Amino acid sequence: MSINHTSALNTLSALISLLALDRLPRTGWALAGVEDPETIAGHVLSTAHLVLALAPQVEPPLDVDRAIALTVIHDSPEAWTGDLPKHASELLPHGAKRELEARVADSLLSGLSQLARARHEEYARAESRESRFVRLCDKLQLGVQLLVYRRAGRRGLDDFIETLKALDSSAFAPVALFHSELQSALENCD
Amino acid sequence: MSINHTSALNTLSALISLLALDRLPRTGWALAGVEDPETIAGHVLSTAHLVLALAPQVEPPLDVDRAIALTVIHDSPEAWTGDLPKHASELLPHGAKRELEARVADSLLSGLSQLARARHEEYARAESRESRFVRLCDKLQLGVQLLVYRRAGRRGLDDFIETLKALDSSAFAPVALFHSELQSALENCD
Amino acid sequence: MSINHTSALNTLSALISLLALDRLPRTGWALAGVEDPETIAGHVLSTAHLVLALAPQVEPPLDVDRAIALTVIHDSPEAWTGDLPKHASELLPHGAKRELEARVADSLLSGLSQLARARHEEYARAESRESRFVRLCDKLQLGVQLLVYRRAGRRGLDDFIETLKALDSSAFAPVALFHSELQSALENCD
Amino acid sequence: MSINHTSALNTLSALISLLALDRLPRTGWALAGVEDPETIAGHVLSTAHLVLALAPQVEPPLDVDRAIALTVIHDSPEAWTGDLPKHASELLPHGAKRELEARVADSLLSGLSQLARARHEEYARAESRESRFVRLCDKLQLGVQLLVYRRAGRRGLDDFIETLKALDSSAFAPVALFHSELQSALENCD
Amino acid sequence: MSINHTSALNTLSALISLLALDRLPRTGWALAGVEDPETIAGHVLSTAHLVLALAPQVEPPLDVDRAIALTVIHDSPEAWTGDLPKHASELLPHGAKRELEARVADSLLSGLSQLARARHEEYARAESRESRFVRLCDKLQLGVQLLVYRRAGRRGLDDFIETLKALDSSAFAPVALFHSELQSALENCD
Amino acid sequence: MSINHTSALNTLSALISLLALDRLPRTGWALAGVEDPETIAGHVLSTAHLVLALAPQVEPPLDVDRAIALTVIHDSPEAWTGDLPKHASELLPHGAKRELEARVADSLLSGLSQLARARHEEYARAESRESRFVRLCDKLQLGVQLLVYRRAGRRGLDDFIETLKALDSSAFAPVALFHSELQSALENCD
Repeated sequence: MSINHTSALNTLSALISLLALDRLPRTGWALAGVEDPETIAGHVLSTAHLVLALAPQVEPPLDVDRAIALTVIHDSPEAWTGDLPKHASELLPHGAKRELEARVADSLLSGLSQLARARHEEYARAESRESRFVRLCDKLQLGVQLLVYRRAGRRGLDDFIETLKALDSSAFAPVALFHSELQSALENCD
Repeated sequence: MSINHTSALNTLSALISLLALDRLPRTGWALAGVEDPETIAGHVLSTAHLVLALAPQVEPPLDVDRAIALTVIHDSPEAWTGDLPKHASELLPHGAKRELEARVADSLLSGLSQLARARHEEYARAESRESRFVRLCDKLQLGVQLLVYRRAGRRGLDDFIETLKALDSSAFAPVALFHSELQSALENCD
Repeated sequence: MSINHTSALNTLSALISLLALDRLPRTGWALAGVEDPETIAGHVLSTAHLVLALAPQVEPPLDVDRAIALTVIHDSPEAWTGDLPKHASELLPHGAKRELEARVADSLLSGLSQLARARHEEYARAESRESRFVRLCDKLQLGVQLLVYRRAGRRGLDDFIETLKALDSSAFAPVALFHSELQSALENCD
Repeated sequence: MSINHTSALNTLSALISLLALDRLPRTGWALAGVEDPETIAGHVLSTAHLVLALAPQVEPPLDVDRAIALTVIHDSPEAWTGDLPKHASELLPHGAKRELEARVADSLLSGLSQLARARHEEYARAESRESRFVRLCDKLQLGVQLLVYRRAGRRGLDDFIETLKALDSSAFAPVALFHSELQSALENCD
Repeated sequence: MSINHTSALNTLSALISLLALDRLPRTGWALAGVEDPETIAGHVLSTAHLVLALAPQVEPPLDVDRAIALTVIHDSPEAWTGDLPKHASELLPHGAKRELEARVADSLLSGLSQLARARHEEYARAESRESRFVRLCDKLQLGVQLLVYRRAGRRGLDDFIETLKALDSSAFAPVALFHSELQSALENCD
Repeated sequence: MSINHTSALNTLSALISLLALDRLPRTGWALAGVEDPETIAGHVLSTAHLVLALAPQVEPPLDVDRAIALTVIHDSPEAWTGDLPKHASELLPHGAKRELEARVADSLLSGLSQLARARHEEYARAESRESRFVRLCDKLQLGVQLLVYRRAGRRGLDDFIETLKALDSSAFAPVALFHSELQSALENCD
């Protein structure tokens, strides 16, 4: 029972650390001048909604619920590192960002459960179909928020438009279709 | 294919509506005077983390991934209604709040997928073990945020402390244990 | 004197509850993607300024000061319920929103004074000329904030533009004139 | 009619300027380190609620509705000047602040109506019983917000506590009673 | 040593007062409807970066480091007065604003050091080449922020565009060149 | 002249990037639960004020103006990387953070001037007395903000208190004295 006692305390510490995701901005938007940008928590939840929308249409079927679990945990190391912007991670030594995330995951997610750690590792390895699907949804969610900013009249986001255009979404047909709808909707903003 | 086309557009509309969860405050904290309170998105993500921590310890085993999917969708109607505070929902006619949520879920979540609608209904019915587990975690997450506010020096949150104390968490042993740790941690704040 | 003592305490509680109006967003703007939207307090004060501008021009004369008092109190139940968005109130059973507001007013405004409760009831009944005038100004104030958002370059507010266009402001000539100026100013934004 | 046309345009400009009251902080709280302080609009509305609570108890009776109109307009020049903090206004030449406000009122409030200008002047002159009553409520509202900050655990607000203690509220019995309740409530925070 | 002791305490008080610069908005942007505007601290730091960019190009050479020190201190009295908007300072008696700033500087900056007071006075007198250079950079920084707001899609900032256009930047060639680049960039926003 | 033309454009790009410092939070405070924390710009300006206060007292004399220039530029790479929290930088490979900053400085600060790049390098090398002095002030400024948070009633900042206590400030007598005053002031908060 003393083991359980300790374990519950660690859970609490981990959960408190993870609350920072609701206060930390998606740095890319902040650097592009968005005054009160989407939070990491908002991005994660929106990605989970996107997974819930598209995953059930994939053939052969995905394990949708596990894909959602991967989504829920995919950015959790950012509760300790913040959302490192592209500029910065590109200038780090090769592999440094991924190693950093793995180390944070080891100490932060082990406070939740072995399952939490396992789900994050599955996401990071990008080998299972579910993890590759979620990685695409993670990128496409940027397009959803981008569309909202563009429809709200915001300009100066061309880098994001290019990033979205360059994304290869062909691995999953429903993702590719949504990607193409998103592009059309963005073009109609101009 | 024209059906798919329509469906993708509906998905986009639903996702855009759901982004509001990252801007809408948990009203109870706002009414208690918290200046920049937790968002609904932050609450949902934190509840998912709590589920990921405790669900794997439950005996007999729960379907943890499905429990996470229930969590991810549980407050989604609030993207259209906002987080109706307790005062208000208690003064509505009996059943009005639940009916309101079901109607919103019908039109908002059908834009995502039948699975999304099904997961929300499972949560709302509170019949499956997973849904009852998630409902408890939803309530306990309030305690995690409460502890953070209390440790930050905030006072005037006695109603929340009472609500947490009155919660019956005995249905799942790991939840009950965490509940009791949380209570101790709160008492140590004074 | 013990009665007075109690009454002052109730006043304090009511005033503290009503401070939430300065923290609660006008939900419609938040749902439309405005990041840091107008507060309910800001809306109420702006409506009072509009009343102060137009009411003195009405023939036969209105009781302008009473109209301002109606304005000051008209959204006060939202300190307990938040600003229920249109989507949500339309999905509630017929009359449920108005009954909810009346119940909140009973318990919240009685902490201020019988006059406060009476002014809110006059507004809710919409029978006196002053109350009908204030109801129109409440709707037109949305147009003032809309114009500011549009002039600031914000897009994606077409629902609000339609709502304003559909408003029947013919009951009071100065209101109708202002309504028409507002429409022209909005058209000049494009 | 061309006169009316011009007048409506001026009204719009004035209303747009006055919307700034919902974005401008009460500077005193900001200087004392409150991160996201009460706005001027929030202060004005809360003062109006206080007037609505206490004015009906005054003997001989006040014109309560006119007192509310005075309240609604009392800080409107701050839409152009911001809320000049005490430090600054004390260092200005004698009478400079009041003259500044009168000049702003002349150009800003004339866009609303002659009545708006008249109500502000009545407030500024502080001769009528209603205006002196509102001036006291303006000061006491600071105490209401102070109490909320203190109950929330905030410290470092001793200057405000001293200011409230030093206030002479004896001219109106219900104000004096409320003042004393407020002081007791503040002492109970420690 | 007891003198040093006192001096350190004064330093602490002054530093704490000056922290308000990170919370106080540049009032002009707030009055123009920018929801979460640049802070005074952000403006000062950006001006220092502009000085660091342009000052090394000036012939005959400026004392660049001293110019930066002038920049760092130039708006410090606003920690007590807030950023008095143009409307307000134009309506104050002639010289009142400058006298106000001098008085605040006397009591606030003397808590830092004689050097701090001297640097502010050099800036206020506008006699040295460095001070005149910094005064121009202070005005041009408004143009940098303006460009960012315009590129972000914001409209309704014509007054600022006019102010920038009317600025005489001919006294220093690198400033004039930057001024002209800024104007071109602004014209390309339309 | 075409060279100058290019250089002015680069300056503009660099200045726009650097504006992000006014929107990016000091991550440590955010992770500790501060809702609306100090920005990087606020920290830099406050450190410059601290340098202006203490540097003139150092014997043998420092070049105070150059020390201020070092301060103004010391955190500028964070405009691209954000403020990497301690947890994260400790988990990066040895030297990775400093190398990252040097690379960012190369591309970001060269847009300002060679002097800007030189001042940053002097700071990063930590060899000159001025740079070592500024590094201490950078750490002590954390203590000033910490004191403000503690006086405001905030709790849960023990890590920061420990960090401040462990700082070796003995290299410069005025810094050591200020450090000790700060510690006393913090102890008086309890």
